[in-house]
Amino acid sequence: MRISELAETTGVALPTLKYYLREGLLMPGTAISRTRAVYDETHVERVRLIRALIESGGLGINGVRAVVDALQDPLASPHEFLGVAHHALPPPVEPVEPTEEVIGWMRDLGWQSCLDSPLLGSLTRAVADARAAGVPLSASGIADYAKAVLQIAAVDVAVAASASSPAAALHTVVVGTVMVDPVIATLRRLAQEVQSARVLGA
Amino acid sequence: MRISELAETTGVALPTLKYYLREGLLMPGTAISRTRAVYDETHVERVRLIRALIESGGLGINGVRAVVDALQDPLASPHEFLGVAHHALPPPVEPVEPTEEVIGWMRDLGWQSCLDSPLLGSLTRAVADARAAGVPLSASGIADYAKAVLQIAAVDVAVAASASSPAAALHTVVVGTVMVDPVIATLRRLAQEVQSARVLGA
Repeated sequence: MRISELAETTGVALPTLKYYLREGLLMPGTAISRTRAVYDETHVERVRLIRALIESGGLGINGVRAVVDALQDPLASPHEFLGVAHHALPPPVEPVEPTEEVIGWMRDLGWQSCLDSPLLGSLTRAVADARAAGVPLSASGIADYAKAVLQIAAVDVAVAASASSPAAALHTVVVGTVMVDPVIATLRRLAQEVQSARVLGA
Repeated sequence: MRISELAETTGVALPTLKYYLREGLLMPGTAISRTRAVYDETHVERVRLIRALIESGGLGINGVRAVVDALQDPLASPHEFLGVAHHALPPPVEPVEPTEEVIGWMRDLGWQSCLDSPLLGSLTRAVADARAAGVPLSASGIADYAKAVLQIAAVDVAVAASASSPAAALHTVVVGTVMVDPVIATLRRLAQEVQSARVLGA
């Protein structure tokens, strides 16, 4: 198909597609003359991945580039591969310098594999913000939260690991992480109602 | 103290305090002359609660009114009392009409006590948005998420139930629910890294 048809099929404007080509996010089409190229189903898929990463994942262009570059790298292990997608995600909270307290929590949880993660700075900030607003967050409360959240992450990783292709796995990691947050937040409020009725109700 | 000192102590501007008085969110001071009234520590606490509900809880004036009205109601059970605070919270996602699928999930989970909750509409919307973005969300995945989230809610409700006063409990429910969401979202990403390293790593 011509680039105009690629625009029509994906619903993405022609200047935007040309921008993706210039930025190397979308691979070039097959040249059929000095000024024309044709595109196929792999381009349609790539454009849809780019849109999903931007619109649902909240990624910037550099994040999208990191993810699509990973698709070209056959050496990465599945863990490294998913790590690229994960690190391209904007942090849920702007990080600060991780505190010894937060690093200590990770050690106590046996979460040594994330001691270098930039997310420790985000956790430090999120905890400080909650405490500044008067929410008591103790080490044992955080440990209980973390154990529950690890079960959530086990579902997340199983879904990503069972994806039909590397592109689908990257899509799941980026988009699934971001789009499932509101599902978890809503389930948490429902579970609070259920738990309150059980513990405090008549 | 005079209202000007109340403004100074709480850091809230005088016109804002007068607005809270007119709206009935802040109880009147004790009149010491036809034009003057004095305020005490209970007013300082109330102003701090109002600010926390607005700034950290994201509540509008009607939500704040519902919460402070509950503080005046000695008949409410702890469960009803916390329910008022909970329902004053803005929903994490704008609700739509709950689907039979989502209602069925609640029944299967044994979460009958939340079948009338407006949050079912938010859950329906959050799930639809995630699926539209290509995230596979199955009944069994949701059930696994829900079981983990119930453990999070058990911590939340225990913290609220152990608060030192009704006002502190309301503060914890509203502010804790909202301000702990980023803590959970960040812990989820860290747990995904830990889980990915365990399951997919070398």
